[in-house]
Amino acid sequence: MKAIKDSVHGHVRLGPVAAELIDTPAFQRLRHVKQLSTVRLVYPSANHTRFEHSLGVYHLARQALDGLELDPDTAAHVRAAALLHDVGHGPYGHQTEGIIRRQTGRDHDDVDWLLSDADREICRVLERNGLDPERVAALIAGGEGVGALVSGELDVDRMDYLVRDAHHTGVPYGTVDTGRLVNELRLTDPPETALVLAEGNVATAESLLVARSLMNAVVYRHHVSRVAGAMLERACERYLDRTDATIEEFRRMADHDLLVALREHVPELGGRIERRDLYKRAVWVGLGDVPAGTVDAAHDEELAGEREIADRVGIDRESVIVDVPSRPGLKESASTVVVDGVPQRLEDASELVAGLRAAERRRWTLGVYCPADHVEAVSDAAADVLGLRTAGRPA
Amino acid sequence: MKAIKDSVHGHVRLGPVAAELIDTPAFQRLRHVKQLSTVRLVYPSANHTRFEHSLGVYHLARQALDGLELDPDTAAHVRAAALLHDVGHGPYGHQTEGIIRRQTGRDHDDVDWLLSDADREICRVLERNGLDPERVAALIAGGEGVGALVSGELDVDRMDYLVRDAHHTGVPYGTVDTGRLVNELRLTDPPETALVLAEGNVATAESLLVARSLMNAVVYRHHVSRVAGAMLERACERYLDRTDATIEEFRRMADHDLLVALREHVPELGGRIERRDLYKRAVWVGLGDVPAGTVDAAHDEELAGEREIADRVGIDRESVIVDVPSRPGLKESASTVVVDGVPQRLEDASELVAGLRAAERRRWTLGVYCPADHVEAVSDAAADVLGLRTAGRPA
Amino acid sequence: MKAIKDSVHGHVRLGPVAAELIDTPAFQRLRHVKQLSTVRLVYPSANHTRFEHSLGVYHLARQALDGLELDPDTAAHVRAAALLHDVGHGPYGHQTEGIIRRQTGRDHDDVDWLLSDADREICRVLERNGLDPERVAALIAGGEGVGALVSGELDVDRMDYLVRDAHHTGVPYGTVDTGRLVNELRLTDPPETALVLAEGNVATAESLLVARSLMNAVVYRHHVSRVAGAMLERACERYLDRTDATIEEFRRMADHDLLVALREHVPELGGRIERRDLYKRAVWVGLGDVPAGTVDAAHDEELAGEREIADRVGIDRESVIVDVPSRPGLKESASTVVVDGVPQRLEDASELVAGLRAAERRRWTLGVYCPADHVEAVSDAAADVLGLRTAGRPA
Amino acid sequence: MKAIKDSVHGHVRLGPVAAELIDTPAFQRLRHVKQLSTVRLVYPSANHTRFEHSLGVYHLARQALDGLELDPDTAAHVRAAALLHDVGHGPYGHQTEGIIRRQTGRDHDDVDWLLSDADREICRVLERNGLDPERVAALIAGGEGVGALVSGELDVDRMDYLVRDAHHTGVPYGTVDTGRLVNELRLTDPPETALVLAEGNVATAESLLVARSLMNAVVYRHHVSRVAGAMLERACERYLDRTDATIEEFRRMADHDLLVALREHVPELGGRIERRDLYKRAVWVGLGDVPAGTVDAAHDEELAGEREIADRVGIDRESVIVDVPSRPGLKESASTVVVDGVPQRLEDASELVAGLRAAERRRWTLGVYCPADHVEAVSDAAADVLGLRTAGRPA
Repeated sequence: MKAIKDSVHGHVRLGPVAAELIDTPAFQRLRHVKQLSTVRLVYPSANHTRFEHSLGVYHLARQALDGLELDPDTAAHVRAAALLHDVGHGPYGHQTEGIIRRQTGRDHDDVDWLLSDADREICRVLERNGLDPERVAALIAGGEGVGALVSGELDVDRMDYLVRDAHHTGVPYGTVDTGRLVNELRLTDPPETALVLAEGNVATAESLLVARSLMNAVVYRHHVSRVAGAMLERACERYLDRTDATIEEFRRMADHDLLVALREHVPELGGRIERRDLYKRAVWVGLGDVPAGTVDAAHDEELAGEREIADRVGIDRESVIVDVPSRPGLKESASTVVVDGVPQRLEDASELVAGLRAAERRRWTLGVYCPADHVEAVSDAAADVLGLRTAGRPA
Repeated sequence: MKAIKDSVHGHVRLGPVAAELIDTPAFQRLRHVKQLSTVRLVYPSANHTRFEHSLGVYHLARQALDGLELDPDTAAHVRAAALLHDVGHGPYGHQTEGIIRRQTGRDHDDVDWLLSDADREICRVLERNGLDPERVAALIAGGEGVGALVSGELDVDRMDYLVRDAHHTGVPYGTVDTGRLVNELRLTDPPETALVLAEGNVATAESLLVARSLMNAVVYRHHVSRVAGAMLERACERYLDRTDATIEEFRRMADHDLLVALREHVPELGGRIERRDLYKRAVWVGLGDVPAGTVDAAHDEELAGEREIADRVGIDRESVIVDVPSRPGLKESASTVVVDGVPQRLEDASELVAGLRAAERRRWTLGVYCPADHVEAVSDAAADVLGLRTAGRPA
Repeated sequence: MKAIKDSVHGHVRLGPVAAELIDTPAFQRLRHVKQLSTVRLVYPSANHTRFEHSLGVYHLARQALDGLELDPDTAAHVRAAALLHDVGHGPYGHQTEGIIRRQTGRDHDDVDWLLSDADREICRVLERNGLDPERVAALIAGGEGVGALVSGELDVDRMDYLVRDAHHTGVPYGTVDTGRLVNELRLTDPPETALVLAEGNVATAESLLVARSLMNAVVYRHHVSRVAGAMLERACERYLDRTDATIEEFRRMADHDLLVALREHVPELGGRIERRDLYKRAVWVGLGDVPAGTVDAAHDEELAGEREIADRVGIDRESVIVDVPSRPGLKESASTVVVDGVPQRLEDASELVAGLRAAERRRWTLGVYCPADHVEAVSDAAADVLGLRTAGRPA
Repeated sequence: MKAIKDSVHGHVRLGPVAAELIDTPAFQRLRHVKQLSTVRLVYPSANHTRFEHSLGVYHLARQALDGLELDPDTAAHVRAAALLHDVGHGPYGHQTEGIIRRQTGRDHDDVDWLLSDADREICRVLERNGLDPERVAALIAGGEGVGALVSGELDVDRMDYLVRDAHHTGVPYGTVDTGRLVNELRLTDPPETALVLAEGNVATAESLLVARSLMNAVVYRHHVSRVAGAMLERACERYLDRTDATIEEFRRMADHDLLVALREHVPELGGRIERRDLYKRAVWVGLGDVPAGTVDAAHDEELAGEREIADRVGIDRESVIVDVPSRPGLKESASTVVVDGVPQRLEDASELVAGLRAAERRRWTLGVYCPADHVEAVSDAAADVLGLRTAGRPA
């Protein structure tokens, strides 16, 4: 059995199907898509890719499958789904997901990417090995109950990325006990097959939630990463506007393709991202200072707000970015744990969930970014345009 | 400068006073006092000692002092206090603390241990180096504001043991970011000098609390460790009853002395602890099933309960142990963090604290332990004697 | 399947036989025997025990067996042998091995310990599970070819202790790639079954040798550990002389038993060891300064030398210790690696072996130790008595 | 003081000059130059960059400077040199060094890069802070004795990359004890100032050498990385031939620029590298099978050989690559260690050096690579053209 050395899990052994899948161009492309996009501008060691993450997810899925007693055919489909769950990602991963969704209506784990991929080489490998691409795609989307292992509240995707992101940023908060988690997963009986944690694991489930919450605070939503991410998103939108690149071509780009394309076609923003010469925060305020209408604003409204702020200040419309995150939430709260023999949602079994949700709400912040020179003027205009109680500009 | 290699912090450099203090018999004794007493019966790698922990606390104190700008004399006293903070511990550390407190009225960080120690060699080393033993002792007890660095809600003791205990048990939950914590500590201005975390560290403080809570759940209060710890405590009480060992002699024992003494003088319990042939849980119930009077029972009442249960079942009085932990609490909730320029208690700044407290309450359990043969009878009798709503015997 | 958390290997899963064996008193005793005896006086974190090491050896053996395709019955015997390989150790492990060997003619991995053990509980567990204790004992001694996995040049014992000792001392040099090593082990065809490393692993085998050599230099033969070890050995000899303890009782002691017994019966040396108040080096010289006769001196001659030195100086005979290590060697040099299809001894396949052997010879040192006050006089007398070219006293 | 979190060293604190230097575009560019170029095609986690490595070198230099007692001005220049030592690197680091050297006569640590850099922003920052760019450049090249800390046999560059590359590949062999190394560095007295390791560190120096040798075997010269690296080098040569890019423009490219440029202008090789669709080894032979003339062949002769082989087989000249590494050597052998008070070269003080050199010679291999279809024909032709004793084609 072939083995690949991974800095997180040690030797990852690959079955023959996995070894073949990895050699396809669509999978090799993941070597060129970073896991944490702009986070590396804050944590410079965070250069890990979706390639190694995908291997890690496959590895954890295999360990979890050891204890789940599925029929061999289902297990083989789940393994393939775990390995392939990220091939639908655009360049810079989650950072371009919103753009792709708005233009195509599809997320990165949408069933169709896998099936529609131009060269279909992944599908051919699957079929050659007796696997059904449609079933693999459905599992990637969380289907069949056991698909929750790949995409659900207790999925191995989450376990891998928390540990991996902590390892590569050097931050200690994402360290969950993957060994225990995969050992303690169970499938409830049909017909309502669901993935749950066995008895005695409320603290285990809480630790996953806590890791996620602390990583959100310290890594995933670090303001430098958010500013760079917002600049990247606007640069991509302009790139798609200004060139005849299709959204499908865009989705298949790798990070290096995008970085070069942005520098060429959107030089101001593209060059700034490359040199880490970032916009500054003109506004940085919490939920309490933002009217509900603004929190729930559609993307178009965000863009309209940007234009209005820029116009009032009298600067180039590209120079203002309004960044309104989606409402705070913690998907992991819906994970299921067996307590006294009864499967319960974690949010019902643990008083911690409410506290973590409150912490997520407290940490939610709306940002408005612009070049350093215009911070003061943009701050005032933005407060007015967005109806903020205060601009909350950081010192 | 002398350096000692530590598996957690790497090279710990020692100043000349520290090097001299370490060579005293009272400090060398800490090599023979394990940090986690009976936890090693669950996590077999957890054999680390108060010696290396004391070095770690000294190391973190030095790092924190770098940023606090104290006068050199105060800093020297704080360093000595950090190094010496655990010399007052009895054998098996916290496990014998209750006994010593009940018989002497003093805790392990009581000012007097250091000053009264038989050979006074530590005091002589301090004085020879121009340090005042009474001031060191006061700092160990948390005095002078800056003593909070050694004993307080944000002390380096806590930071070291969370990381060290996680490292040695192999559990990932105690990993706090000591580098960040010691960098972000500040002293507020006199006269009310207090140790606080600088602006922007609510998540840092929360991570300390969360680490503590998860370590409580998974390590410190693991039921096997609690059963063994309760057996050890009873064995020590009988040892003190049956021999003419004074409490002061007892306090100065090392772990190996105690283990041999117990096997000789309290052979049934002593032998069981040595062979890990532990009592089983006859009762294991949460706060909701225990009347308030039982939760707050004094130690004498616990012992009286044990005797009554044993008598009802008709077995030897030594064969029943009632283990009522103190009420749940989280000292770290009172740590102070600067938020928008104002020092706030963490419990006021973070919604997470309430959730963690609720989780601590949920995890609180009263246990009654006895040899496997009597579990059923003891369970019934205990429910009756202690007024429990249910015996909650584990399957 | 039961799992125990280990700080080195993570979750170690235990089969039912292993779980039963671990619960025997003879195995539980290993919790009280430190892996590195006196090394902890140099590296204070090195408090790990033969208990956790034995679990680690079992864990690696299981991984290696995955690739060796033995019949299930042989594999079950090998697993038991791996788990039990250290139950024959006396207190303080290797440090008392010489004494036990001289008095009984048997090493710690001698076949007979397991079979002769007083309570025979281990044998009963083995037999109850259809395993033959004699066969297990023979495998522990390296028999049947495949016994080399437990005791041989490429055994998993060595792999575990190098990694574990590095982890607990905090020294980086013992880090071998256990994942690769166990994956690459092969058994050659009968009748001459031997354990070899597969093609392409000369560097893998070299890394094992190198790790051993550097750990020798920096950890295992550190002079402080050697001085303390020599003091412990003499103290044990006197303990056996002065009391009526049999060598068999001695062998079954745990570390804490021995420490207390020495302090009571050999108070001068015992107290010094406990307080780390060690003898100093009066002589510290390399092979080139020592006549061959002295290098190869029998233990009796060492003791006679000590007496003569003490007499000349006019001090108590207990106050001088002559410490002559056995001739330098590297057992791992005889490991076998497949090169171009042909199994070769590593020493024939690697030019590095000669260099490492020379380094071992260079690092060999004879020591004479005594209380600090007598260092000068002992140094002179020892040079004369032992016929040294120079006393090489460290500054 | 600003701090950046690094996954290897934890918090790296930056002085004000360092913080300013890091913000220059020339330094930010290092975020986009991978430390190990094509090694990531074997070890997928090895995506770390020269940016974080440079921070690590700065960090270790600061630690070493603590013990060296240089005047503050010299120390400030050394710190700047440590931070900036890699800004001269071309894209893909060492992989393009040969091309740049052949076309410009200058290495990456040549004094001139720093001084001649187009925008001269680094020079301006240095001058603004009272530092002399020429002196910094001279230190980067190893000047003034103390420059050996940045570029020499015992430089902190080497210490950082061995540990960092081990961390990111997941291979355990590069783990040297940086804490001990930087503590033990000393400068000998003028006029012949040299950097040496203090007494008692022969094993420390050996460990550095051993780490390098094992990393060479397992990581740096892994055949997959060598094949990809050779393909990259040829692709770059063709890119420079086919476009009007100057060598100076080429040197300032980042990895992503180069990857896109190669795919566009050298599509066959560029596309293969991107998809990891690599040439196969037609020849793979050791020193003993290669005539001296071939080992020492100039680059032109290598290219001529390629053409001749391709012509004989009748395939495209781009389809054959001859890869002759430079003669084996171990620069670290010349490091200096104090032994019995006298500074000695490691190769004189350690018998291990000869063994490691022999191992390096054994591992030296000449490779000839081509598309899978032509392996057999190329193998035969190459043996003939290059005068090999055998083609040594891997199975």
